[in-house]
Amino acid sequence: MIALPDIRSAAAVIAPHVVRTPLLPFGPGWLKPENLQPVGAFKLRGALNALARLENRAHGVVAYSSGNHAQAVAFAARLHGVPAAIVMPDNTPAVKIEATKALGAEVFIVGITERVERAEALVAERGAALIPPFDHLDVIAGQGTIGLEILDDLPGVEAVVVPMSGGGLISGVATAIKSLRPDVRVIGAEPELAADIAESLEAGELVRWDPLKRAQTSADALRDEPSELTWAHISRYVDDVITVSEEEILKAVTGLARHARLIAEPSGAVAVAAQAKLGGGVAIVSGGNIDLALLARLLAA
Amino acid sequence: MIALPDIRSAAAVIAPHVVRTPLLPFGPGWLKPENLQPVGAFKLRGALNALARLENRAHGVVAYSSGNHAQAVAFAARLHGVPAAIVMPDNTPAVKIEATKALGAEVFIVGITERVERAEALVAERGAALIPPFDHLDVIAGQGTIGLEILDDLPGVEAVVVPMSGGGLISGVATAIKSLRPDVRVIGAEPELAADIAESLEAGELVRWDPLKRAQTSADALRDEPSELTWAHISRYVDDVITVSEEEILKAVTGLARHARLIAEPSGAVAVAAQAKLGGGVAIVSGGNIDLALLARLLAA
Repeated sequence: MIALPDIRSAAAVIAPHVVRTPLLPFGPGWLKPENLQPVGAFKLRGALNALARLENRAHGVVAYSSGNHAQAVAFAARLHGVPAAIVMPDNTPAVKIEATKALGAEVFIVGITERVERAEALVAERGAALIPPFDHLDVIAGQGTIGLEILDDLPGVEAVVVPMSGGGLISGVATAIKSLRPDVRVIGAEPELAADIAESLEAGELVRWDPLKRAQTSADALRDEPSELTWAHISRYVDDVITVSEEEILKAVTGLARHARLIAEPSGAVAVAAQAKLGGGVAIVSGGNIDLALLARLLAA
Repeated sequence: MIALPDIRSAAAVIAPHVVRTPLLPFGPGWLKPENLQPVGAFKLRGALNALARLENRAHGVVAYSSGNHAQAVAFAARLHGVPAAIVMPDNTPAVKIEATKALGAEVFIVGITERVERAEALVAERGAALIPPFDHLDVIAGQGTIGLEILDDLPGVEAVVVPMSGGGLISGVATAIKSLRPDVRVIGAEPELAADIAESLEAGELVRWDPLKRAQTSADALRDEPSELTWAHISRYVDDVITVSEEEILKAVTGLARHARLIAEPSGAVAVAAQAKLGGGVAIVSGGNIDLALLARLLAA
């Protein structure tokens, strides 16, 4: 597991390359707008920390992702002058493929079921290093830097609401917060359609949901499930989970546009939807890479 | 005219109540996203400074505005426990009227030509203080705090691009920047349809444009013209002006949505449109209160 010194060290490593996002007042609480990072998501923090600490970098890095992790690894690799190969499923929106290519990465498009296999093949062929999206200590420590910033900016914080899927973000943030301020509540947010962690915490053990069931949520970045590593952090540190409906998620997307002038993807608005139910606290807006045609439809409705 | 100590003093006064906006990397330059302020515009800075320094506050404050200044004064007045009366023209979008009322202000709707007269009548009747949108030293000093923040965050800055209309924002920002760093270029941005300051700087004297002509730009917050006070600052400090077409303005609005996940109103994107022509520098995104139906149309196009 990671500990506070890992997160402090990550903060120093990534500081020159990430946006120091402010807290924005929002209704009775605050937003931490990680959608303002250069690739549009918090994922940049973990990817930058992992790349910076990578010893075996001569043969490049490999990642598999349909979303924000792809761009984060491509961005971090370019910054460190390391070649990046990104394996993306063939249902990835063209705009995300183009954005990843624009960051200088080599992109491999494969069937959704083949992506892990293909990534592992690239690792084997090239001697490259795999950068996983959440199941990695350096990635988790990078995401945890958000927790340090929240405590620095708002010493009176009572609760932090964090979206959960693979669990990398909340593992890092919860470790930072509970290490320094055990009195601050760390609350996970999940779509009702992908509420496997809520059920796991209830059961006291990791419960697996059918991936096809989880795939139904519009929060397409929250369709993953925890690893043993992230579950160890979650089960130790997370106080509670709030689940939100699809309607509540989309309402949070339009609410952020209307009242905070922020563009969030559905996954990025899940903690904001949960915050509305909680009635306060800091909600992490985790990403902003929404299909703008979808946003246009939501705003016109 | 204002000077650096006025701006430093304003910074201390408003710091607890404004968002310390970060600089966001954007293409070859940076954005200063003032649309993330609580009322969605930089105007909050000047209004807060003016309210804080107001001696005659027992009888409340009065402002006339169809836009961001109305909400800024309402917000600042509520914070200081001072009653606010806001005179708005009858063509103000309902959403802005509701937002101003929601901040606790008393709103008077009048014909567009009657607003100054009605505001002055309220001042006379009540003994209230008028808070003008730009023709006021404390307002200008408040806006200037943006300049201090840019220099703090980016010591290597070469140019700052600032939207111009009444000139309060650029008067403050240019004073801050030229007082500390005369080598940094301060560049005004104007819609081609309201380029009276560009013409004035060319002529070396304040040139007045027909208000009906200026009213044609979609940048509805940039339809004002400088006062003698703001012109004194502009003519002394501003290096150059870049004018932008209506098409360039709307393209900047969609570019901010797509690449920076920020919602800007057309006026708020004018400096970004000018930045694209300059090829770098810091552009101030001055406001984000766009009609969301308009934004939806732009994003769907």
